[in-house]
Amino acid sequence: MRLLITGGAGFIGSRLARTLLARGQLQGQAIEQIILADQFPAPADLAADPRVLVKTGPLLDHCQALAHEAVDGVFHLASAVSGECEADFDLGLRSNLDSTRALLDALRARHQGGAAPARLVFSSSVAVFGPDDAVPMPERVADDTLPTPQTSYGIHKHICEHLVADYTRKGYIDGRSARLMTVTVRPGKPNGAASAFFSGIIREPLAGEPSVCPVSLDVSHPVSSPRATVEGLIAIYECTREAYGGRTAMNLPALNVTVKDMLDALERVAGPAARARVSFERNDTIAGIVSRWPKGATAKRANQLGLHAEKSFDDIIRQYIADTQASPHAALALKGYTP
Amino acid sequence: MRLLITGGAGFIGSRLARTLLARGQLQGQAIEQIILADQFPAPADLAADPRVLVKTGPLLDHCQALAHEAVDGVFHLASAVSGECEADFDLGLRSNLDSTRALLDALRARHQGGAAPARLVFSSSVAVFGPDDAVPMPERVADDTLPTPQTSYGIHKHICEHLVADYTRKGYIDGRSARLMTVTVRPGKPNGAASAFFSGIIREPLAGEPSVCPVSLDVSHPVSSPRATVEGLIAIYECTREAYGGRTAMNLPALNVTVKDMLDALERVAGPAARARVSFERNDTIAGIVSRWPKGATAKRANQLGLHAEKSFDDIIRQYIADTQASPHAALALKGYTP
Repeated sequence: MRLLITGGAGFIGSRLARTLLARGQLQGQAIEQIILADQFPAPADLAADPRVLVKTGPLLDHCQALAHEAVDGVFHLASAVSGECEADFDLGLRSNLDSTRALLDALRARHQGGAAPARLVFSSSVAVFGPDDAVPMPERVADDTLPTPQTSYGIHKHICEHLVADYTRKGYIDGRSARLMTVTVRPGKPNGAASAFFSGIIREPLAGEPSVCPVSLDVSHPVSSPRATVEGLIAIYECTREAYGGRTAMNLPALNVTVKDMLDALERVAGPAARARVSFERNDTIAGIVSRWPKGATAKRANQLGLHAEKSFDDIIRQYIADTQASPHAALALKGYTP
Repeated sequence: MRLLITGGAGFIGSRLARTLLARGQLQGQAIEQIILADQFPAPADLAADPRVLVKTGPLLDHCQALAHEAVDGVFHLASAVSGECEADFDLGLRSNLDSTRALLDALRARHQGGAAPARLVFSSSVAVFGPDDAVPMPERVADDTLPTPQTSYGIHKHICEHLVADYTRKGYIDGRSARLMTVTVRPGKPNGAASAFFSGIIREPLAGEPSVCPVSLDVSHPVSSPRATVEGLIAIYECTREAYGGRTAMNLPALNVTVKDMLDALERVAGPAARARVSFERNDTIAGIVSRWPKGATAKRANQLGLHAEKSFDDIIRQYIADTQASPHAALALKGYTP
């Protein structure tokens, strides 16, 4: 089988690609090729794999060109992130709406040309939820909570959920939308998302660097580890339509934590010196965006598929440390960490 | 002030235009001009009014050209209807999504050029609601019921609600979305909507013509008179943002009736001979679409604005008869009716 991962050079995309290549199969079918489409170059290890075809360039171009590519399945992860969409309205519309529409239309054209409907997993986001004056948001958002997004990013994700549902209803694709929780701990540099600090306040202290937290200790949020997120995307790809249930987007499992919970875990795993590297300096823009995000989430449908979040944030930090120790950058990324 | 009505030659659009011209003002401001944009020519009485500017042509072209028009307010009613969207997927996307996006971007461009944000009322639809396998639909859908649309038309309307909300959040427009109930009794010919029979089973018997009902007597549905619908659109235009509340779409008031209720009312108002002109012949396509529509609706937010539906379907039929008696086609349209 041939798979496409949009955003395939990104953190989740490349981790998903590595996981799929290591498995060698998806849904019992051997993976012959994975196309990694991204505006950035793919990581060297992936580019070197003979089963990987790297396509670098603007997503909208990729999606239009896709009309001529035979793919059996798609993980559509590419997206402009929340901070980018707030700063550049047109960029957000183009990257998140126009690209998704072009991708769906390319898959539809292939199906109408005789191909079986491609299976597609769309990565939506917990950012579809937000408090509207007319519709209060529950403490924990569920699969069937009414999304009233308070950012352009959330609006785009929710609109795409509905496009995926309609192309699926018409039989053009077999689409499923998974709402990702905020993924932490991300390695590398902040990516421009308003949620970047949810990784920074753990990653930087472990590297011996200072980190500034732009929100207060009591901010609560649903997060997910990279491992659980990739596992969720694959499970939602592999499940039957009956097991997926309907065409409405489902939440991926969340660990609901406060910033204090995260820093307490950091102290337990890496000691008080690590925690002491985090200082607090409120950023009104980021705090404003985050204040309109959910404080927690449930994931009943994902749980029914056997998906569960980590039991504690300690586990998520240990996972980051173990992943990083296996990388060539371990010495730098963990220079503030003494086991 | 200068107003734009898209779909301004349609039934609701032209009725709205006549109501506004008769009032002479909106929100206390004198109406200097109303632009009626439609793919069809405007009715002669409206075209003859010196305050009316008629623009006939494809909606997408109108919306793009609008970037150069100074309008203070918009009623965005134009839409491909449900049956059309099911039959022609591309037509639906173009008419309902691309046109709305072009309209919103034209208004945004004018605002970014220095104009005050235009006020915009978007006519959404009760068709945003539907039953999904993962999300059962309540007997009566409310303002905050989760929309899981089961038609492309419903998907498009719901997506546009979210676009209107986001352009409003950004301050580019002052947008409000009103979910219209099924409007009955419509005069003239069926318009291709799957809901056309909700008017046909009353209008045709009153004209002395036979009518075929494609669904069974016990089908229940939220309907609204033309009068209440136009009143609702104007009230939602005129209310303050605080009174509108949030940015989520609101339901317009509904009278929840069964087909049997409608025919009982027909018999009370126009006699058993009128009712006897209705026969039943199930149409699986129409019945299938209608079965995925709500059986009833509530409208708490609209009620708080002082909006209410008629008390009985008898009132709606009498309203149709009174409106029709004032028209030049009364003799034909009511030749089956003896007061």
